[in-house]
Amino acid sequence: MDFMLFALFLAATFGAGTTGALFPPGPWYEGLNKPTWVPPNWLFPVAWTSIYLLISFAGARVAGLDGNGYAMAFWSVQIAFNALWTPVFFGLRRLKGSLPIIGALWLAVLSCTITHFQLDFWAGLAFVPYLVWVTVATALSIAMIRLNPNQKPLDLNAI
Amino acid sequence: MDFMLFALFLAATFGAGTTGALFPPGPWYEGLNKPTWVPPNWLFPVAWTSIYLLISFAGARVAGLDGNGYAMAFWSVQIAFNALWTPVFFGLRRLKGSLPIIGALWLAVLSCTITHFQLDFWAGLAFVPYLVWVTVATALSIAMIRLNPNQKPLDLNAI
Repeated sequence: MDFMLFALFLAATFGAGTTGALFPPGPWYEGLNKPTWVPPNWLFPVAWTSIYLLISFAGARVAGLDGNGYAMAFWSVQIAFNALWTPVFFGLRRLKGSLPIIGALWLAVLSCTITHFQLDFWAGLAFVPYLVWVTVATALSIAMIRLNPNQKPLDLNAI
Repeated sequence: MDFMLFALFLAATFGAGTTGALFPPGPWYEGLNKPTWVPPNWLFPVAWTSIYLLISFAGARVAGLDGNGYAMAFWSVQIAFNALWTPVFFGLRRLKGSLPIIGALWLAVLSCTITHFQLDFWAGLAFVPYLVWVTVATALSIAMIRLNPNQKPLDLNAI
């Protein structure tokens, strides 16, 4: 694995992950109803940091291989939707509006897992925790829409 | 060029571009002081749509080539920082805080231009308008920081 490639993919995840630092869960999120199985708050940054390291490793391995077009294209799709989700959920507070985004992210991560596995076993494996985590996040998102039927999105134009 | 690859890179730009639709320039932006040379509002969506089409074309051409690792890694970096910038500027209203993001985006786009040119002339050329536009956007960003010294970022926790 080329260390410079790893650093570049890690830079991309840093860009996406910065949304988590700039749009953190605050009093609004704390006040929402959550299902009993909601993961504890400390787990979120731990999970995301691990996932970002793993997918940077996966990207770096696959970037060096011939015939990586689809894997690389899906890698780009997942990082774009990953960066988009957080500001829509925690910034605009759109519980429903963020659902198609996490749905698209889930599909992109599934496609990454498959296309990376086709090129390199360890790269494919490195995407599995991400797929599991986004599945959990999607289920959590759906549960929170049901449990908070009266939540209104934030209207930035009114501020 | 593989049309499916083009569609995938276009999907990635759609994810990043959705931030522009969800965090549009509203009354807050209209009220800011701007330099005399600020581009007219209608030009922004036209420029971004053209750029997204061009870089999807570039990504699709390069994705099919051997030795595309660095080009593909930089493509991912630019789309992550592209998606990050809009919510920080128009959502959090961080004039200064968004500057390192657009700086990182500029570097990523420059690196994309170089690495795409190395593999394919047309792919490299397709990145040039993006580089020009982000240069203008960076200059505009710096001018607006100077012209609006008393702007305070939005505090989401206070809402």
